[in-house]
Amino acid sequence: MKTHGRPAVVLLSGGADSTVLLCHAGRHLGHAPLHAISFRYGQRHARELACAAHQAERAGALHTVLDISFMGALLREGSALVAGGAAVPSLADLAAEDLEQPPTYVPNRNMMLLAMAAAYAEARGICDVYYGAQAQDEYGYWDCTPDFVRRLNRVLALNRRNRVWIHAPFAEMRKSEIIRLGLDLGVDFAHTWSCYRGGECACGTCPTCVERLNAFAATGVVDPVPYMT
Amino acid sequence: MKTHGRPAVVLLSGGADSTVLLCHAGRHLGHAPLHAISFRYGQRHARELACAAHQAERAGALHTVLDISFMGALLREGSALVAGGAAVPSLADLAAEDLEQPPTYVPNRNMMLLAMAAAYAEARGICDVYYGAQAQDEYGYWDCTPDFVRRLNRVLALNRRNRVWIHAPFAEMRKSEIIRLGLDLGVDFAHTWSCYRGGECACGTCPTCVERLNAFAATGVVDPVPYMT
Repeated sequence: MKTHGRPAVVLLSGGADSTVLLCHAGRHLGHAPLHAISFRYGQRHARELACAAHQAERAGALHTVLDISFMGALLREGSALVAGGAAVPSLADLAAEDLEQPPTYVPNRNMMLLAMAAAYAEARGICDVYYGAQAQDEYGYWDCTPDFVRRLNRVLALNRRNRVWIHAPFAEMRKSEIIRLGLDLGVDFAHTWSCYRGGECACGTCPTCVERLNAFAATGVVDPVPYMT
Repeated sequence: MKTHGRPAVVLLSGGADSTVLLCHAGRHLGHAPLHAISFRYGQRHARELACAAHQAERAGALHTVLDISFMGALLREGSALVAGGAAVPSLADLAAEDLEQPPTYVPNRNMMLLAMAAAYAEARGICDVYYGAQAQDEYGYWDCTPDFVRRLNRVLALNRRNRVWIHAPFAEMRKSEIIRLGLDLGVDFAHTWSCYRGGECACGTCPTCVERLNAFAATGVVDPVPYMT
């Protein structure tokens, strides 16, 4: 696929994966200009939005933050990811059945975000949307799997005029491979935020912290983000 | 499928089709309670939201209006359906290629709305979402076809715990059959709004007015909504 000089939309949460993805889409795949989209939805870890803004600027991407806080009304019972929802569990406390669909799962969130990103792209005649889903996590979300992306693309393929394609190049990569790719790209990991909890330092025990720490450990590089523990 | 006493979510625009669908889901299919969801997205014909509220109340449905006006930022160039977008064309003025994807098409809107409706349903443990798509229109939207709904259901089928199913019982019906069904159900068509333009009376010439007038004509019943012409 010739992508050099083709614009692309990247879903940018401000976490490690989507930040690496943004750099990968621009530097390795040659997409330009880059459009980064972030979402404000009442998440506990709003700090990731500041990281997203920083990373978009660093990558020379146009940055749009969509306020979709209406999601609060939608998700009555909330999710542990949304302020006011249940407490964020430690990975160690997750029961076996929770690994399949953890308390941090937000009902159908990723389909909503991707549908909006596809609309944004389509309205601008952009064909490529990049999504940092990663399926090899220690726990699983059905809407981060390669199958999810494949089937969503089958829906978008019906568009008669402006076909948008969702790419999830990390879907079958280990988190440590993504971190390694980011290190090769010179990603500024100090300004990425993964922790599900809303503290000053990353907690080091929630599922995403554990995963991130394990991934950095596998690369032999110290994660520059400050941890409580 | 045994639906009696099962809750359901219905996408309610306040137009004729979705109003008939709401009554059909409750009275014919026996769903209860009914949850109607409408969207405010800066549409020209905001009057349809008043009709939606009226119809939800009449059907005894819980009504939620989600403000998704962030869609304005998403859809830079707009659509003829959104205030500030291009003018709404008359059906007679549509070129052949426009019949495939008319100026009133809003990029990926229906996937966004259905993703939100599915999230609303999933968060409440509701399995059934009703969508008033109708494919036999005089003009076509790719995201109103039976294939679109089928493929979207293939995505949702991946959910490991809370499977939501989108039903589009009108997808292969003629508009006149839907109107006839509504007449059988005693639907209050005087309080439905289909016109794409934002006037006091329906214009009678935009694509949806022409379609509605043709459908009523086929049933032999006069449309109770006032028309300019």
